[in-house]
Amino acid sequence: MNIMLIGDIVGRPGRSIIRETLPDLKKSYNVDFVIANAENAAGGNGITKKIAEELFTYGIDFLTMGNHVWDNKEVFDFIEEELRMVRPANYPPGTPGRGSRVVDLDGALKIGILNISGRVFMSNLDCPFRTADRELEKLKKVTNIIVVDFHAEATSEKQAIGWYLDGRVSLVAGTHTHVQTADERILPGGTAYITDVGMTGAYDGILGIEREPVIRKFLTQMPSKFEVAKGVSQLNAIVVEIDKTSGLARKIQRINIK
Amino acid sequence: MNIMLIGDIVGRPGRSIIRETLPDLKKSYNVDFVIANAENAAGGNGITKKIAEELFTYGIDFLTMGNHVWDNKEVFDFIEEELRMVRPANYPPGTPGRGSRVVDLDGALKIGILNISGRVFMSNLDCPFRTADRELEKLKKVTNIIVVDFHAEATSEKQAIGWYLDGRVSLVAGTHTHVQTADERILPGGTAYITDVGMTGAYDGILGIEREPVIRKFLTQMPSKFEVAKGVSQLNAIVVEIDKTSGLARKIQRINIK
Amino acid sequence: MNIMLIGDIVGRPGRSIIRETLPDLKKSYNVDFVIANAENAAGGNGITKKIAEELFTYGIDFLTMGNHVWDNKEVFDFIEEELRMVRPANYPPGTPGRGSRVVDLDGALKIGILNISGRVFMSNLDCPFRTADRELEKLKKVTNIIVVDFHAEATSEKQAIGWYLDGRVSLVAGTHTHVQTADERILPGGTAYITDVGMTGAYDGILGIEREPVIRKFLTQMPSKFEVAKGVSQLNAIVVEIDKTSGLARKIQRINIK
Amino acid sequence: MNIMLIGDIVGRPGRSIIRETLPDLKKSYNVDFVIANAENAAGGNGITKKIAEELFTYGIDFLTMGNHVWDNKEVFDFIEEELRMVRPANYPPGTPGRGSRVVDLDGALKIGILNISGRVFMSNLDCPFRTADRELEKLKKVTNIIVVDFHAEATSEKQAIGWYLDGRVSLVAGTHTHVQTADERILPGGTAYITDVGMTGAYDGILGIEREPVIRKFLTQMPSKFEVAKGVSQLNAIVVEIDKTSGLARKIQRINIK
Ligand SMILES: [Fe+2]
Ligand SMILES: [Fe+2]
Ligand SMILES: [Fe+2]
Ligand SMILES: [Fe+2]
Ligand SMILES: [Fe+2]
Ligand SMILES: [Fe+2]
Ligand SMILES: [Fe+2]
Ligand SMILES: [Fe+2]
Repeated sequence: MNIMLIGDIVGRPGRSIIRETLPDLKKSYNVDFVIANAENAAGGNGITKKIAEELFTYGIDFLTMGNHVWDNKEVFDFIEEELRMVRPANYPPGTPGRGSRVVDLDGALKIGILNISGRVFMSNLDCPFRTADRELEKLKKVTNIIVVDFHAEATSEKQAIGWYLDGRVSLVAGTHTHVQTADERILPGGTAYITDVGMTGAYDGILGIEREPVIRKFLTQMPSKFEVAKGVSQLNAIVVEIDKTSGLARKIQRINIK
Repeated sequence: MNIMLIGDIVGRPGRSIIRETLPDLKKSYNVDFVIANAENAAGGNGITKKIAEELFTYGIDFLTMGNHVWDNKEVFDFIEEELRMVRPANYPPGTPGRGSRVVDLDGALKIGILNISGRVFMSNLDCPFRTADRELEKLKKVTNIIVVDFHAEATSEKQAIGWYLDGRVSLVAGTHTHVQTADERILPGGTAYITDVGMTGAYDGILGIEREPVIRKFLTQMPSKFEVAKGVSQLNAIVVEIDKTSGLARKIQRINIK
Repeated sequence: MNIMLIGDIVGRPGRSIIRETLPDLKKSYNVDFVIANAENAAGGNGITKKIAEELFTYGIDFLTMGNHVWDNKEVFDFIEEELRMVRPANYPPGTPGRGSRVVDLDGALKIGILNISGRVFMSNLDCPFRTADRELEKLKKVTNIIVVDFHAEATSEKQAIGWYLDGRVSLVAGTHTHVQTADERILPGGTAYITDVGMTGAYDGILGIEREPVIRKFLTQMPSKFEVAKGVSQLNAIVVEIDKTSGLARKIQRINIK
Repeated sequence: MNIMLIGDIVGRPGRSIIRETLPDLKKSYNVDFVIANAENAAGGNGITKKIAEELFTYGIDFLTMGNHVWDNKEVFDFIEEELRMVRPANYPPGTPGRGSRVVDLDGALKIGILNISGRVFMSNLDCPFRTADRELEKLKKVTNIIVVDFHAEATSEKQAIGWYLDGRVSLVAGTHTHVQTADERILPGGTAYITDVGMTGAYDGILGIEREPVIRKFLTQMPSKFEVAKGVSQLNAIVVEIDKTSGLARKIQRINIK
């Protein structure tokens, strides 16, 4: 089976290119299930129920999040009951929403999705490695097909968790940096890995954001109001071919279109 | 003309694959000048005169550095007089070595090389943007062919300086994360750009380092002694085709071999 | 002569205790000039013209700022022309406002006030040490009586700049942590020093802020809206006795009242 | 009963002043039990069995640690069996040593000692708040007399845990910044609190370390070898008077001697 994971969707330009290209991409790559990181889907900051529904309409089946999960307060209206969405599992116990979920695909296949956040240069969350162990113990009882979105900054932490989970999950895909990396591979134990899937949004922005205020902030070190950039869009994603029984990966391909 | 820039060389595995493959690569890509980031060339930490000489023997013409420039004390023995080497230009005035240099290629073409470090999640150096302005003012009087190695962690800072320097230099190439990115492009002003060139060293390590101690450090949060990893090597680089007169880029290609 | 420096004023509780106690304090300590850090004076975030005027009414002569200087947009309306105010001098050239100013006291004595920000665990500003050198070169031509508000987080950076400036200025007083330190002293060269003057605001808050949202943020790692705390106020300050001719300090006393 | 807690002991100058003054201080303050933070006791970095024994000889009854706990490898030789020592409790499960211990004083009174590390600007350890809850559940079954050494950088995190534990422990004393704060108080619930106890070591160093290399590091941003400073010593401590039955504090006094 083929699972697609789309890199951080940034605002309207990200949603537009998904609407325009996802149906064809799904056909070309024979995709069975589409996951997308949606932490920046609503105007660059967080998510709303309306935008989540919009994304589902375009052919996305499931949403992962990251450090921007709480940016838009409307997330609290639906994160508890929305079964097609996870937020980083290493938030403390009691946090709204779920860090992992299992989805039934056509009533036959079960897919486990696990979202974890890194800690290096990020928030003080619980240990991502031990959180992964704990969540996998639950998920592995239900399915071998497990996708991990590791939302993190540091390449060391990302590669470390990739190797740590090798052979135990189908895919460890990094998100958060908004730049696609060219290091996709199948690790020796059978887990597909990429350090960062990249960004789906304005191609001529800085990480999908209007350039001028970002550069000005670096120059002045003063607060700056960021807006989603306009213009041509890019879509960054990967497609992983997974063995239905073992859950191990056979192939990982990068998608990088404008 | 074609300039190659090789991503962070990590220890012996990095040097070996350069020795074995660089001569052929230079032919295939018709390379006129080879720059390499060598901040981890000596056992993963810094550089020595002996290892610099070794790298020049393999066909590298010029070395850039980064935050690990001072890791091996032997660097102080030769950084002042070595004309084929730069360290980040935004260290304070009085720092040993130079942040930019101009090289005469075959007595005809002049190539300016500028090394700058990012500040986000890194050291408290001088402003990289203003440092670039200051150094370019000098370099532009001598040549239009200018290569910038921007050694930085955050993708935002890297893309920002790429756009900031667009049209003023031939290439802005990121280094430091040890993972090659897939976002190489020619910016509208004519500057070639990539967020990170990647790493040249052990393919099965974590950023070129032995995996077990790195993972153990994440798990235990205790100090851990890191060694360069062994086994198969990878070489990460880019080749940029540059117009000799304008100094602008015509083409940028990624190289990622094992 | 005696100069008083009041620690970070946080919102209305901070302003109230100043209104109520400053006149008497000035008499008891025979104070000639009062400086206050006002980066949190307006509802905990930044400053406005109205609140600056209010503070001048209470007997404060001069305001210093810090990392929160830009939090309230109204600061831009008056920071350029307000001669009784400085912001950190190590913001880049072109930043609104001034990093140092000289005030004429009764047309006779000149007092130089220099505001600098630390970099450790803070913003990527210019080097505070070199900035101090540059600003002092200007100020020393006009007066020996120089007060430095070093707005910084790390105790190492604060003590380092204290010793670095010893003998060159009257006082190096730390601000920003909102907790008064008990290490006030006259350094061997004659400069009065304290790592942090402390906070002037609600005594039962956390750094002057309502406790519950701060604790909740630590527990949940989710965004939290902070408000200035209510209840009993504290005033933290120091008074330094300075030799008018040499500008060196004779005595430093802490003030910590409720 | 009276418990003394001595702030971070830095190398030989710290140990010397303890040897010379502790016996008299214990008499003057009528101290029943002496705890000291010893993370920098061995040449500024970590602890050894020999130095721990030396400190016990001088009249210290118990040692707490911090982020420098592992700096000297010899700590692994004795941290497991040494009953008079704790390291931060929020290291992951499986970490050598213990985060809390109970000591029998004269076979009658039981004193619980809990060491926790902050996370802000520090290592990625487990949540200090939840760790405190977990450890206190155990300790409270045995005794009400509980001392918490919260080894942390940020004043916000320190005040937050103080208020969080108010009424549940005898004392929350901050360590790590090496500068004594002047905010000692009894919180409304009966817990004694101070943001930082301070440093016991060379008075004319920077945090107990030789000044010149520290200042040079700030100026050059290059690596610098630090040594413990020499000269006059200071001793920073607090003494807390505790009700034996309730475990609540009646009084907290700072000690700051040279
Ligand atoms: Fe993110
Ligand atoms: Fe994102
Ligand atoms: Fe490197
Ligand atoms: Fe680096
Ligand atoms: Fe403040
Ligand atoms: Fe501040
Ligand atoms: Fe310490
Ligand atoms: Fe410490």
